[in-house]
Amino acid sequence: MTDVKCGDDPWQECLEAGVAVARQAGEVIREALKTEQSVMLKSSPADLVTETDQKVEKMIINTLKKKFPSHSFIGEESVADGAQSVLTDNPTWIIDPIDGTTNFVHRLPFVAVSIGFTVNKQIEVGVVYSCVEDKMYTARRGQGAFLNGQRLKVSGQEDISKALIVTELGSSRTPEVLKIVLSNMEKLINIPCHGIRALGTAAVNMCTVATGGADAYFEMGIHCWDMAAAAVIITEAGGVVLDISGGPFDLMSRRVIASSSRAIADRIAQVVQPIPYARDDEEQ
Amino acid sequence: MTDVKCGDDPWQECLEAGVAVARQAGEVIREALKTEQSVMLKSSPADLVTETDQKVEKMIINTLKKKFPSHSFIGEESVADGAQSVLTDNPTWIIDPIDGTTNFVHRLPFVAVSIGFTVNKQIEVGVVYSCVEDKMYTARRGQGAFLNGQRLKVSGQEDISKALIVTELGSSRTPEVLKIVLSNMEKLINIPCHGIRALGTAAVNMCTVATGGADAYFEMGIHCWDMAAAAVIITEAGGVVLDISGGPFDLMSRRVIASSSRAIADRIAQVVQPIPYARDDEEQ
Repeated sequence: MTDVKCGDDPWQECLEAGVAVARQAGEVIREALKTEQSVMLKSSPADLVTETDQKVEKMIINTLKKKFPSHSFIGEESVADGAQSVLTDNPTWIIDPIDGTTNFVHRLPFVAVSIGFTVNKQIEVGVVYSCVEDKMYTARRGQGAFLNGQRLKVSGQEDISKALIVTELGSSRTPEVLKIVLSNMEKLINIPCHGIRALGTAAVNMCTVATGGADAYFEMGIHCWDMAAAAVIITEAGGVVLDISGGPFDLMSRRVIASSSRAIADRIAQVVQPIPYARDDEEQ
Repeated sequence: MTDVKCGDDPWQECLEAGVAVARQAGEVIREALKTEQSVMLKSSPADLVTETDQKVEKMIINTLKKKFPSHSFIGEESVADGAQSVLTDNPTWIIDPIDGTTNFVHRLPFVAVSIGFTVNKQIEVGVVYSCVEDKMYTARRGQGAFLNGQRLKVSGQEDISKALIVTELGSSRTPEVLKIVLSNMEKLINIPCHGIRALGTAAVNMCTVATGGADAYFEMGIHCWDMAAAAVIITEAGGVVLDISGGPFDLMSRRVIASSSRAIADRIAQVVQPIPYARDDEEQ
């Protein structure tokens, strides 16, 4: 089933390959930020996609395919082009070439390359490279999470009334969806919590929880490529990832709570009203 | 009325003194972030104040007072301690030692020292030092705005439907206020705009507009020390600052729209419902 097994840790090479290609991708993105002007509209004004997005995804997939020809790939741009987004037991790379595309278009400096890697549907490796900030977040299941080589640890906060929460208004412009999104924020602020922040990228938001800089993140309507890498970074930093219902996290479900503690995640699950979205692996 | 007039620009020395003391303050804050644990609650969970906050303000005011003994001072912590917050024609330093106190407490890396300087009620100098990011934003009225010495320019965007907007849920936990805050966000998203971001510091939010990374910022309930420095940084970067009503900006009014263009600022003024707050210079 796999073509790489080196020593005790068969997936260490995948972590290294992910980091290397994320760094390369980051260079392309930073370069593009200097010059790129032309942007295309995808499905909504908040969901912009650029030539760079597609170019970077191709580069990442081609590089990894050469090294790991038997592996599977799920990438945001490939799926937008009609590729399937179904997770199998085969070793699978799950890639968002530019997480925070709207930030990218506006040159707001929170733009990340997100590369997750699963085997038997379990996330083994996570690489999130916030390339303008030059912050490389990495995790290998069972071996801790790191930011530029420094070990990460969640805040450990258990009391939601002392929590700083990150989330997003999201890209949906459906009035009913927006009403729920805002009402969820209102409920959390009224608990009260310390505050709500929104940086505009799911991967960086999640990694911020892994650093202890925020205590929780939740969102609905995102995709497996937004959260695959960061999910293992959070858990390896001592945090938890759950479904928005408080049940087990499901990578293809398009919803997540990531938190410094089970107590805060449970409290968010109690308060937040779910929004129905088609799963990533459903026929579109 | 002043004790510093050097050559053609009487206030250049104030800019330099502001930058020097902001850098010193940034060092104290960064050091505190490594060790500080004890925090005190002020008026609400979102409005945390720490020993560092008070220590840094004293350090800034003492340093500047020694250099400019005839100048006046308005500082967040001094006002919290009962000092007056009235702007006169006298040269006046308006200081927020830690803008983004909640971020500071959580170690979210957007924490700024904000130092504005007015003469005859006009803002002459602005210094915002985002000290964890090591970004020094500066402006001298009539001479441009800079980030770490590099000239800043707003995006120039005039179309709100292409705008990225920064704002905050704010520190008020009054249900009626929160309802208006969320409804204002809803109206903007429904225009639609590209998205809404919230970094948790007014000064950094405003400077982000100055860099072109976002197209507008608005907020109500903030104070003169949150916006004095950044207001001149925005205008010197080619942007506009207006009152939330669309009228002239009033530093003591606790409300602001900062934007890359008059067109976007006007549109925000049309859409946003004002929230009544006592002015900074009103008897409390």
